[in-house]
Amino acid sequence: EYYVDWDASAAEKGGYDYFMLKEIVEQPQALSDTLLGRVTTDGTLTLDEMRISPAELRELEKIVVIASGTSYHAGMIAKYAIEHWCRIPCEVEVASEFRYRDPILNRQTMVIAISQSGESMDTLMAVRHAREQRARVLAICNVNGSTIPRESDGVLYTHAGPEVGVAATKTFLTQLAACYLVGLYLAQARDLKYGDEIRAVVEQLASMPEYVERVIGTVDRVRDLARSLAEASTVLFLGRHVGYPVALEGALKLKELAYIHAEAFTAGELKHGPIALIEDGLPVVVVAPSREGRGVLHDKIVSNIQEIRARGARTIVVAEEGDEVIRPFADEIVEVPSVPTLLQPVVATVPLQVFACELALAKGNNVDKPRNLAKSVTVE
Amino acid sequence: EYYVDWDASAAEKGGYDYFMLKEIVEQPQALSDTLLGRVTTDGTLTLDEMRISPAELRELEKIVVIASGTSYHAGMIAKYAIEHWCRIPCEVEVASEFRYRDPILNRQTMVIAISQSGESMDTLMAVRHAREQRARVLAICNVNGSTIPRESDGVLYTHAGPEVGVAATKTFLTQLAACYLVGLYLAQARDLKYGDEIRAVVEQLASMPEYVERVIGTVDRVRDLARSLAEASTVLFLGRHVGYPVALEGALKLKELAYIHAEAFTAGELKHGPIALIEDGLPVVVVAPSREGRGVLHDKIVSNIQEIRARGARTIVVAEEGDEVIRPFADEIVEVPSVPTLLQPVVATVPLQVFACELALAKGNNVDKPRNLAKSVTVE
Repeated sequence: EYYVDWDASAAEKGGYDYFMLKEIVEQPQALSDTLLGRVTTDGTLTLDEMRISPAELRELEKIVVIASGTSYHAGMIAKYAIEHWCRIPCEVEVASEFRYRDPILNRQTMVIAISQSGESMDTLMAVRHAREQRARVLAICNVNGSTIPRESDGVLYTHAGPEVGVAATKTFLTQLAACYLVGLYLAQARDLKYGDEIRAVVEQLASMPEYVERVIGTVDRVRDLARSLAEASTVLFLGRHVGYPVALEGALKLKELAYIHAEAFTAGELKHGPIALIEDGLPVVVVAPSREGRGVLHDKIVSNIQEIRARGARTIVVAEEGDEVIRPFADEIVEVPSVPTLLQPVVATVPLQVFACELALAKGNNVDKPRNLAKSVTVE
Repeated sequence: EYYVDWDASAAEKGGYDYFMLKEIVEQPQALSDTLLGRVTTDGTLTLDEMRISPAELRELEKIVVIASGTSYHAGMIAKYAIEHWCRIPCEVEVASEFRYRDPILNRQTMVIAISQSGESMDTLMAVRHAREQRARVLAICNVNGSTIPRESDGVLYTHAGPEVGVAATKTFLTQLAACYLVGLYLAQARDLKYGDEIRAVVEQLASMPEYVERVIGTVDRVRDLARSLAEASTVLFLGRHVGYPVALEGALKLKELAYIHAEAFTAGELKHGPIALIEDGLPVVVVAPSREGRGVLHDKIVSNIQEIRARGARTIVVAEEGDEVIRPFADEIVEVPSVPTLLQPVVATVPLQVFACELALAKGNNVDKPRNLAKSVTVE
């Protein structure tokens, strides 16, 4: 028996033709709701159902994130944040492979299991395996009282509300928020950041809904672009650093919804093989890193863009507002607000969701129920 | 100045139209040469230029493998072997991303850098970064005296001889052999396996050239199959466990040589998104795990095959000789000899090399010099 804390009426389309369109627009609210009430009056970060004590968190020697599909991409971003803020080694594993790989786990390992439904069978099996090895398990889920949280030591609920579209959108953005909160909470418990430093990041997080709102307000060009590419048989995606999981997520959305071949690469791997695929007119979506946060990576991605354009690629570049350096190299530019480096995925993912959704609609696909897919994969 | 220990005449095509065809056939010899002289008369495994002492190896708390392209796939297999045999946590990182991710390294970390040429700039930069953090670095390279071995603490040379074809074949198989040797050497240094256990695996390795020879002798059906798919615009690859890097390598070869869209997935991830791509007639290459070694995974891959066939996929299954269970589910079956679980990639990769090469030839491509690619990537 599950307790579902949302109203049935929320599950209607609210004027949109598809739930997915509505759910993309709901992202700022979903983010706000997920961030709500996480800071006490004295400024301490508090995660009420964490249940793994600060003393236990101080003993951890390793974090392993397990997840599947879109949740796996959230886990990849969690790794960047946790390692950067806390300097604890963090591995990310595909849930279905995890327990067959003889993973090395013990009482000093915390497993973070990310599953929207809390019922994903691969992730549940991985949780059970981790607990048998005495690892501590923290769940990040969207459905109250579902199986994975019930079988975990602690849980951080995302408050995205019901997501009807099979392709995850608002649950992904709220998973990112949850991952950042976990990273900060670990830093707080392990005394790795001063209170004011943690509050500064929490405030940055608190402004993400507004930034996402701004992105949603400016995606009409992305829609036009997507419609113009409805006949494409392949789209490649490139990213670096936290932009790589964003590229993977953009590619997955396009596979799921538009059924066209979309693969993401770290931009640096291109020349080790995949660049052979580049030919005249091939659309390549590039998630450009922030110039301020990672100037050296920005320079490198500019040279990657030059390489693929020289071979005929049509480049669609997701870049920070005001990034004039990259503009001359982009056939199409999609601007997102400038935000702190680690948080960029929150804004950069949104245009890629819209892109995939609109391209699929232009092909006449039902974006709420893509072929062959189930919302929650409850079999192994 | 490099010292190259092979003869110029070896770099001729020896009757083959392309170097790649010759290099595929040379794999048994390359493997033998790489395994030669690794065991002393008293049965101890000895890696002459390892230079990192057994005492230092006993202190290690973590292994990080860094590599790019095909070498990265060898690194993924190294992770399985090292974690299984030695229970030391092992991470595998794309070289170009490694140092931008603030990796957590110290004196108890050993970095294994895999690069055929020893000149791959991304890997070299990663090696330098690792050494600055005081990690120990072991290089696995094919070119004597190249930069990466010179800047590393120790080196294990593969003895594949010169590889002229841009797409790696025999150097990949010898990298696998080197990775297994490193894993066993670690197990020996850390007293994790008895001498007879190590010798048993060394003997299994010693019979791999013969098995690869047998695979090469039976690939005519793969050639016919490849030619029949010359018009395919997309081929998917599925694997699990050590079969997943094999699937990735098969997909990369097809991208590099045939310029067609080929993406590999862990079979368990299919239903979390990519299965939406499956449509009537889509060729899907499945690398089936050994029934004996990983019976539970074999069962699961059989059900994955059923799922995709139900949606119209044409399945090409690489399976063990005598695997009668999987046969009814395969539209085409490619048999490889039954070998120990961890060593399966050595035999299972070969038909995928032949498949990609033949498909590319059927399209009229120059398989020795695929478009856009360089043999050794000496820029970042």
